[in-house]
Amino acid sequence: MLVEPTHPGNIGAVARAVKTMGLQRLVLVNPKKFPHYEASKRAAGAESVLQTAVLTDDIQSAIADCTLVLGTSVRDREVSWPTLTPNQAAADVMGHLRQNTVHQVAILFGRESSGLTNGELALCQQQISIPANPQYSSLNLAAAVQIVCYELRMAAHAESEQADGQKRSLSTAELRRAAATKQQLEGHLQHLQQTLESLDFIKSKPPTMLMRKLTRLYNKAQLTVEEVQILRGILTAIQDRETRS
Amino acid sequence: MLVEPTHPGNIGAVARAVKTMGLQRLVLVNPKKFPHYEASKRAAGAESVLQTAVLTDDIQSAIADCTLVLGTSVRDREVSWPTLTPNQAAADVMGHLRQNTVHQVAILFGRESSGLTNGELALCQQQISIPANPQYSSLNLAAAVQIVCYELRMAAHAESEQADGQKRSLSTAELRRAAATKQQLEGHLQHLQQTLESLDFIKSKPPTMLMRKLTRLYNKAQLTVEEVQILRGILTAIQDRETRS
Repeated sequence: MLVEPTHPGNIGAVARAVKTMGLQRLVLVNPKKFPHYEASKRAAGAESVLQTAVLTDDIQSAIADCTLVLGTSVRDREVSWPTLTPNQAAADVMGHLRQNTVHQVAILFGRESSGLTNGELALCQQQISIPANPQYSSLNLAAAVQIVCYELRMAAHAESEQADGQKRSLSTAELRRAAATKQQLEGHLQHLQQTLESLDFIKSKPPTMLMRKLTRLYNKAQLTVEEVQILRGILTAIQDRETRS
Repeated sequence: MLVEPTHPGNIGAVARAVKTMGLQRLVLVNPKKFPHYEASKRAAGAESVLQTAVLTDDIQSAIADCTLVLGTSVRDREVSWPTLTPNQAAADVMGHLRQNTVHQVAILFGRESSGLTNGELALCQQQISIPANPQYSSLNLAAAVQIVCYELRMAAHAESEQADGQKRSLSTAELRRAAATKQQLEGHLQHLQQTLESLDFIKSKPPTMLMRKLTRLYNKAQLTVEEVQILRGILTAIQDRETRS
């Protein structure tokens, strides 16, 4: 998923990077120019990726059904998120696919000039940071996509060597152990924020820093559907007390 | 080392790929157009790599002083050379540097259209093959260079992390970001259990199953010292309310 890419040539180069690594799905969030002949030219034989690309102006709804969302960055941020190398991230993604029969993974790449905003990174459960020269860390957008997709392909290769690809339907117990979707996570975090406000634990508005830290904590935990249910049950119990008192 | 690159834009993109990964030396064998404004434009902040690039029309003499020469290809050849993934090749290069005080390593990348000739590959001790989609394996030249240089940087990183095993004292910020100890985790879980009991959320005794699930959840999250402080702060706020009501 490319967030507000400026140069159509980069979109084409990204399509090529994606397809050479055996991937196909590309989501474009508010591209400056698309479709564009520069994109088609640089895509070379990967025009099909451009043709099936999803255009959107809303990241939140684009990732609503995702069970795992990763964001890429080269810089350190104020709140330091758990940062993975592309190699570690690919292993995590494979683990996620293995453990969750229902899954949809999104990887966000930011603007050429400034990457992802802190708000966008806060939507991600994990952050991928590509190790680069500290004196010149400005990777081209398509180059970053190429590296991440390459690691995914390498990891998938390793995986398929020991694979048994049977499909089967899920039991209720498995559904409860399934990874929570982004929407379910958001629901929990909103519920948590309301509860903390009613407890006067959050006094300042907006409660950015604390909520960002809590978001990071629950992202790290990669909650299951059942865990979200338990946590929201606790929040409801706290709120019931508040109402009665 | 780029052998007969056709597009000056690719030369610039390669320079950028090389520099972002902390490398510098670029050799151009018979480039079609160089220097060229397209190369400079795509190099972005890596103009220095272009300025110091070595121009030659003779591969043989260019690699004469090399102690290790690797060639890249995506296709299988009639004569199948020992083929390495970029990952394996980087490990080999590091091993070579470690074992040879005098060393110079060259990595050859072929033409955009047709790669390296069999004659050129015969000059190489090893062949690197980038795993790609069999239906569309046409990586952009700079993308291929980016992947190989990325693997070199990752391998060099791993190497240097082993090398400097120095210990140092931690800053306060680092201490807060440090992983919580088992004891701190236990303290949080006991506090959580007490709070849930006072909320009548836990009714049965012992509350084994629920607490086991919550323990698992917070174990997964790999809490930091600061996160334990935040969570216990919230629990204290809930308990304060309980006492007052």
